[in-house]
Amino acid sequence: MRHFRDGVEMRDKSFSGGKSYDLVSDADLESEKAIAEFLHSAHPGHELLGEESLAGGSADAEHLWVIDPLDGTNNFAHRLPHFAVSIAYYFRGQAVVGVVLNPARDEWFTATAGGGAFHDGRRVEVCDAAVLDKSLIGCGFYYDRGAMMRGTLAAIEEFFTHDIHGVRRMGTASIDLCYVGCGHFSGFFEYSLSPWDFAAGRLFVEEAGGRITDATGSPLPMAKTSIVASNGKLHEAMIAITSKHTVEST
Amino acid sequence: MRHFRDGVEMRDKSFSGGKSYDLVSDADLESEKAIAEFLHSAHPGHELLGEESLAGGSADAEHLWVIDPLDGTNNFAHRLPHFAVSIAYYFRGQAVVGVVLNPARDEWFTATAGGGAFHDGRRVEVCDAAVLDKSLIGCGFYYDRGAMMRGTLAAIEEFFTHDIHGVRRMGTASIDLCYVGCGHFSGFFEYSLSPWDFAAGRLFVEEAGGRITDATGSPLPMAKTSIVASNGKLHEAMIAITSKHTVEST
Repeated sequence: MRHFRDGVEMRDKSFSGGKSYDLVSDADLESEKAIAEFLHSAHPGHELLGEESLAGGSADAEHLWVIDPLDGTNNFAHRLPHFAVSIAYYFRGQAVVGVVLNPARDEWFTATAGGGAFHDGRRVEVCDAAVLDKSLIGCGFYYDRGAMMRGTLAAIEEFFTHDIHGVRRMGTASIDLCYVGCGHFSGFFEYSLSPWDFAAGRLFVEEAGGRITDATGSPLPMAKTSIVASNGKLHEAMIAITSKHTVEST
Repeated sequence: MRHFRDGVEMRDKSFSGGKSYDLVSDADLESEKAIAEFLHSAHPGHELLGEESLAGGSADAEHLWVIDPLDGTNNFAHRLPHFAVSIAYYFRGQAVVGVVLNPARDEWFTATAGGGAFHDGRRVEVCDAAVLDKSLIGCGFYYDRGAMMRGTLAAIEEFFTHDIHGVRRMGTASIDLCYVGCGHFSGFFEYSLSPWDFAAGRLFVEEAGGRITDATGSPLPMAKTSIVASNGKLHEAMIAITSKHTVEST
């Protein structure tokens, strides 16, 4: 938040080919360092998996923390107060705890396996929309600016043919998933997300009574994948659209 | 806010052909009534122009208040805390005061002619981006689900060819315009907005140092029109894209 208030100096991520729209900031790195130091100290034997320098953790570790120290870096860079820290804890491959925090709003989304999903301490559930017509659909654009971008636009166009209430593109996938759990969005899709983008939000969606798969309806791997989250009732209707426009991650 | 907290019962607007995605709620109507009663009582001779039942005011009235009692009705209906009340005061056809309030965040955007633009009391300015590459671009989809929707998607696709940081679709035009003034968005476009959607935001953009025209670069009328707002430096670059995909309002 100090970096957010004082102004943000962004760098292009060299490991993504230096594209100017894939940014990393001191805030990403400092947030990651603080989280990693705390977890290493509190749980010395646990493994960490995350963006930036946390690529070490293995998906089948006994204890695994999946961390995005700053999701929504582009919003952060433009001082738009809609970004998040996303942390999930997995025990033997099963999600146990998921937390998404928007520090700019002091807004907390928390979920525990079997214990429900909560927004600022209030239990939430997915919406009960049974037809796309009454829906607000969230979406995301991966950094790809080619076939995957066009596939996303084609899917949006097809969603509009169902007279949906609207499409939203807020810019922070972890919060988008929580918005499905809170019932704001009936569904959300994005064609390429990493585990640290969705690990906490996935548990939040499921604990709120929703469903989350890849864009073709298959279970999510602990790897880069397409994502469709919904209130459950609309899942097949969403997959019918998203599966048509899926493009392999690059 | 009482309606927002307690749950929202929405109706389709009969005058828009009863499409299920153009909604009106008791909150719209009660907000409008409260604003109109206050203004009629405080300024008996002034005219009002706005959404819902406030269609009376004339664009060339000596004193004119341009009012959207609830902008972002779809977000409101889905309990997404991103919507606004937008009010502008015009004297002899010139904007004098503009206020956009997001009651769910208690967030105020205010501007006075010649006096600057303020976010929660802090003076703000447009960003200084001189190339589209580093930009976050806001956009909106009018209720149209035909040619205008496809024109909006085509414009988004063309913006992406400039390696912009991203596109945002937040769902509340008056706040989108304020986000241009605050420097979050380098630009914003939508192919059909009514005066009550943009009257306050327009003054905010101009007082923050930005520029606002229709999608072809012409001055804004006090009537339904396409909109392009920018930090000024990027205006021609935005118009070059938006003017190609303009469709007449229906």
